Amino acid sequence: MNPIQYFFRPHGVALIGASSNPEKLSYGVLENMSRYGYEGGIYPVNPKGGDILGFNTYADISLTPDPVDLAVIMIPAPLVPATLEACGKRGLKAATIISGGFREVGEEGAELERQCLQIARQYNMRLIGPNCVGTVDLYSGMNTTFIRGLPEKGNIGFISQSGAMCGAVIDLVKETGIGFTHFVSMGNEMDVDETDMIDFLNDDPHVKVIAAYIEAIRNGERFIQVARRVGRQKPIVMLKAGRSEAGEKAVSSHTGSLAGTYTAYQTAFKQAGVIEARSAQELFDIAVALANQPLPAGKRALIVTNAGGPTALASDSIADSGYRLANLHEETKQALRKRLNPAAQVSNPIDMLGSANPEEYAMGIEAGIHDENIDVILPVNVPTSLVNPEDIADSIADAVEKTNKTVLVCLMGSSSIQEARRILHRRHIPIYTSPEQLGPVLAAMDRYKDWLAQPEEPQPVLSGIETKTARAYFNSASSEKFWGESTVRPLLETYGIPLIPGAAAKTPDEAVTTASKLGYPVVMKVISPDILHKSDAGGIRLNLKSMEEIKNGFESIMESCHGYKKDARIEGVLVEKMAAKGTEIIIGMRRDPQFGPLMMFGLGGIYVELFTDIAFRITPLNRSTARQMILETRAGALLTGLRGQTPADVDAVVDILLRLAQISIDFPDISEIEINPLLVYEKGKGALALDARAILKSEESHIS
Amino acid sequence: MNPIQYFFRPHGVALIGASSNPEKLSYGVLENMSRYGYEGGIYPVNPKGGDILGFNTYADISLTPDPVDLAVIMIPAPLVPATLEACGKRGLKAATIISGGFREVGEEGAELERQCLQIARQYNMRLIGPNCVGTVDLYSGMNTTFIRGLPEKGNIGFISQSGAMCGAVIDLVKETGIGFTHFVSMGNEMDVDETDMIDFLNDDPHVKVIAAYIEAIRNGERFIQVARRVGRQKPIVMLKAGRSEAGEKAVSSHTGSLAGTYTAYQTAFKQAGVIEARSAQELFDIAVALANQPLPAGKRALIVTNAGGPTALASDSIADSGYRLANLHEETKQALRKRLNPAAQVSNPIDMLGSANPEEYAMGIEAGIHDENIDVILPVNVPTSLVNPEDIADSIADAVEKTNKTVLVCLMGSSSIQEARRILHRRHIPIYTSPEQLGPVLAAMDRYKDWLAQPEEPQPVLSGIETKTARAYFNSASSEKFWGESTVRPLLETYGIPLIPGAAAKTPDEAVTTASKLGYPVVMKVISPDILHKSDAGGIRLNLKSMEEIKNGFESIMESCHGYKKDARIEGVLVEKMAAKGTEIIIGMRRDPQFGPLMMFGLGGIYVELFTDIAFRITPLNRSTARQMILETRAGALLTGLRGQTPADVDAVVDILLRLAQISIDFPDISEIEINPLLVYEKGKGALALDARAILKSEESHIS
Repeated sequence: MNPIQYFFRPHGVALIGASSNPEKLSYGVLENMSRYGYEGGIYPVNPKGGDILGFNTYADISLTPDPVDLAVIMIPAPLVPATLEACGKRGLKAATIISGGFREVGEEGAELERQCLQIARQYNMRLIGPNCVGTVDLYSGMNTTFIRGLPEKGNIGFISQSGAMCGAVIDLVKETGIGFTHFVSMGNEMDVDETDMIDFLNDDPHVKVIAAYIEAIRNGERFIQVARRVGRQKPIVMLKAGRSEAGEKAVSSHTGSLAGTYTAYQTAFKQAGVIEARSAQELFDIAVALANQPLPAGKRALIVTNAGGPTALASDSIADSGYRLANLHEETKQALRKRLNPAAQVSNPIDMLGSANPEEYAMGIEAGIHDENIDVILPVNVPTSLVNPEDIADSIADAVEKTNKTVLVCLMGSSSIQEARRILHRRHIPIYTSPEQLGPVLAAMDRYKDWLAQPEEPQPVLSGIETKTARAYFNSASSEKFWGESTVRPLLETYGIPLIPGAAAKTPDEAVTTASKLGYPVVMKVISPDILHKSDAGGIRLNLKSMEEIKNGFESIMESCHGYKKDARIEGVLVEKMAAKGTEIIIGMRRDPQFGPLMMFGLGGIYVELFTDIAFRITPLNRSTARQMILETRAGALLTGLRGQTPADVDAVVDILLRLAQISIDFPDISEIEINPLLVYEKGKGALALDARAILKSEESHIS
Repeated sequence: MNPIQYFFRPHGVALIGASSNPEKLSYGVLENMSRYGYEGGIYPVNPKGGDILGFNTYADISLTPDPVDLAVIMIPAPLVPATLEACGKRGLKAATIISGGFREVGEEGAELERQCLQIARQYNMRLIGPNCVGTVDLYSGMNTTFIRGLPEKGNIGFISQSGAMCGAVIDLVKETGIGFTHFVSMGNEMDVDETDMIDFLNDDPHVKVIAAYIEAIRNGERFIQVARRVGRQKPIVMLKAGRSEAGEKAVSSHTGSLAGTYTAYQTAFKQAGVIEARSAQELFDIAVALANQPLPAGKRALIVTNAGGPTALASDSIADSGYRLANLHEETKQALRKRLNPAAQVSNPIDMLGSANPEEYAMGIEAGIHDENIDVILPVNVPTSLVNPEDIADSIADAVEKTNKTVLVCLMGSSSIQEARRILHRRHIPIYTSPEQLGPVLAAMDRYKDWLAQPEEPQPVLSGIETKTARAYFNSASSEKFWGESTVRPLLETYGIPLIPGAAAKTPDEAVTTASKLGYPVVMKVISPDILHKSDAGGIRLNLKSMEEIKNGFESIMESCHGYKKDARIEGVLVEKMAAKGTEIIIGMRRDPQFGPLMMFGLGGIYVELFTDIAFRITPLNRSTARQMILETRAGALLTGLRGQTPADVDAVVDILLRLAQISIDFPDISEIEINPLLVYEKGKGALALDARAILKSEESHIS
């Protein structure tokens, strides 16, 4: 049995610190424990003794009767470790620590957490919290929170890294008829974390959708693995807070500046099939739809309505999500014309005018159910003084009972539609009060469907990688944190990444010799661990066509670079063949602390900064992922032959992306690596890395 | 007196078609008329006679007692013209026609509308409707709608081109404490239109903000003029429905394809200072803030909170709008530390933990009021079982009573915060139930503030425009609908737009002569009214360096073009100097049926399609508008010298934009015109038009 079960279906609960003072939160917890039908024993523990709310109080955990699995701890932080020890001795299986005053207040509190965790390990107990507001299982009636009220039983499990969000969400939904299975406030996650909880909720048969408010994922790799597995069975919808973080400005590569922490989260979500919501409202808008409706078979929608304006807004909203109002079959229209009010419009939308009654709604919806041009049915209604919204709700619910088409309702209003909303939600029909909510929900359903349809693909086999040579080179190469092109080239070479031919030269004469081997024209670039931006330093000369030009170029590079940075260590120049024209792109990697290597692809040259036209994926990559990454950018459109452009060698880019990803996996000490530009040629003619750089791990991961 | 006043404060109202049947809408209208304190006479008109709801009924409008200014007409459409005539004879000043069955049902109904309008003109009556749900003035108590319930009195006037939206909005807001002045359902706008109503609401002293739901503007030029004037006194917030329209696909120029109808609306809104909302919720979120709070002095925000998660979401939301959590003064922090709960965080956000009480909220807010680093104060609260939300609301309202800083509150919840929300709204403090609502509201306040700050600039004087020559040329030039480069060039030339030197040639020999005058290398382009896309037809040869190349090029152009389109009429080639390299941009105009010439600026070459990096303005332009247009694109960043690029001649682009705008104003028969590419050189070195085209007006305005 999954030990997390003890938090939700324990045989007996000790409430440690339960107070008899109704103004204390711990009193509220006891009240909630007693209120929702939990069938196990409830044992308040308080040295003061006496009865609270009719429950016998125990002076100490050791005195509580059997069975007792779970402790809910609500005493000051400094007292928690000793209490936890007593719980362990008493044989408890789990403890929810509601008390604050731990890691969130500083080092002293963090030390208390470490003590608690050690004790828990020793006694094989699992912990939720500290600094949380408890957990709710609506089916077992367990409610260890002090939050007032609860929503109805249903099929959405909610996990939150903010206790306040649990309270706010319960307040938002409790009168809407939206049904839940669990509310879990995770607190500081010293033991059980959000990923454990996702895994646990996956095994609960009541849960159809997992919704989560997340500030940080503890272990990115494990999260992706679990979410990917769970997501195949139950959709996971997440709202990530803390998108904009300070400290992401001072970076030295494009990849570093473009691939922020939040980007890593978004990328992880996308790859793991997690549906990202952009607001608290969207989180539940999407969760309700996924928990209660089938995924749309296609993007052809029908609106059945009594209200022009709201329908216009709904049409705009679904159009933004790629859905469209499809044409109805001629027979469908004829049948409707016979049955509906003669003034009604029987195209799409079916507009039955302000006077539309419940029967007419049923007719319109049935038309959509039977018309094979329609995948999604969207009844839209504005309450009028003529018709009860509840009757409309019943009629809609009856009409869609047996269809497997997707149905989402918009009842635009507030005070008049409260009961109608409850009716629809109880009958598993999602209802929204603004037409603009429909589009984002349909878009999310579609994203999830697309993710489910992705085939699992094995890891690619990359030929010609000389791992040993690479390892040896890596270990012997520069001890600098910043690796310029000349240091990175050999590494790329051993991984089979095609480079523009070239070699280092220490003197003008060496440069001339190299140039004549390569063939004119050539390019020269300064080699210096102290110069990060070679062109800013005047350290690059292009299109050199003769011995003279090389000699002059060499001297002038030295001059410019010393002018730029007086004491720069200059090791010579890199002489490279002048490359033929191609499409400039950039590929790179930033190692994310949570999720590991985050690969980037984008349009190169000045355009990477101008348009930030970039795509990301977390490693490992396979060929389809790499290709998708390319195709989701505008650069991808360019490479595949936009408006008569010759298609470029996308396969070569895929291959280089996979090889750069392999380098990133094989060398965890590389924190950033980037090829910029990579020149891509016509289909079949490959691609060439023209410049590259890397940043090795250090205490401060970014050098400015 | 503005005659629209008669709709809202008439001396006596005749309700024509008022029914004694409580299931009829006209009964509902009488009920509403009698319910909200309207002090004039109320005269139901119904041939059946008798009393309805205690009101004496008149068999005919001619029998109603004096004074009576307004008729509310609720009888079948075919009877309306005769009734309107009777109203005119009776001396009525205005009529609201609620009945449907007019333009919206087809030609027969449109004819009825024309008759009504003629009668109204004859008797000098103003009309609202038909096909509307009536109007409400909350201060006079006039309510000619059948909508159930009303919100509180306040300062937002709402205009709607959808009657259903009036009903939905009233239902959404009536229990929130948000206060309104007017609800106006415009219907088919056969006489009084949305612009008249904006103008009218501007004169009503109760109205602080005008909010509108709009599907179409009747007269774009007048709308911009009125909105611009009104906007200086009262903010106008608009939600535009029908953003995605069919029929905008088949177009022949980039400008045509990129400058859609909705783009014209957005541009008009921006230029006229109208604040565009993206959803019905945002419309009122923004309206409430503008109606009740001062504009933010700056973008430095302070959050005062009891809830971590919602605060994280609020921070993300305001960061997306360019606002930031500013550092508090050290003294502010010290003072707070002394007064607040010791566990509270006294940075920004000021997090007073879950137990935060009303006094602590007041302290936090007062700290923000006195700290000069703060412009905007955002109290965030999640209801807890410890504190009444109403007490928090009162405390917040007391604390901010005297500040002129902007205060927006987030009470995240629903069922628990109903009363607290009413308290705050009544005290003119906008409250939002989701933290994500804050950012868009602040962004809107900021956009409005920026618009207010724009100086009024006179029309630019453009030298060297030979209007007469241009007019003569225009009249004598091609009668084709599509004008290629060779036809457009002389027009651009007379308006002082710099063109790449060139001339037409009918034979290879003429081409050689022209080339030797221009100097090699040259470019040749086919001249044909039947070839729209010269390069697709193989009608362009670049970089021709000799007589031979020209002769061969000429022949091969002829061959390619005839191959491309067998019967194409080919008039020769345009021989032009090969241009020096520059930054390619595109400028163009599409004449919008509502708003007139819509100017476009964007990055040229393949990038215009790849990135749609474009900006729009409606004419007339002045120098600052043209410059802003350039600067709001990424192309603008490129031209002004992104990352060490040499700054380009932006002044030259401004000048050409103004000249192209003048052509568009002077020649209303041009429906699209475009210079693509315009090559822009270094600052001081100007810009050169390399290619141009125009489309003249026709029945179908776009040629595919």
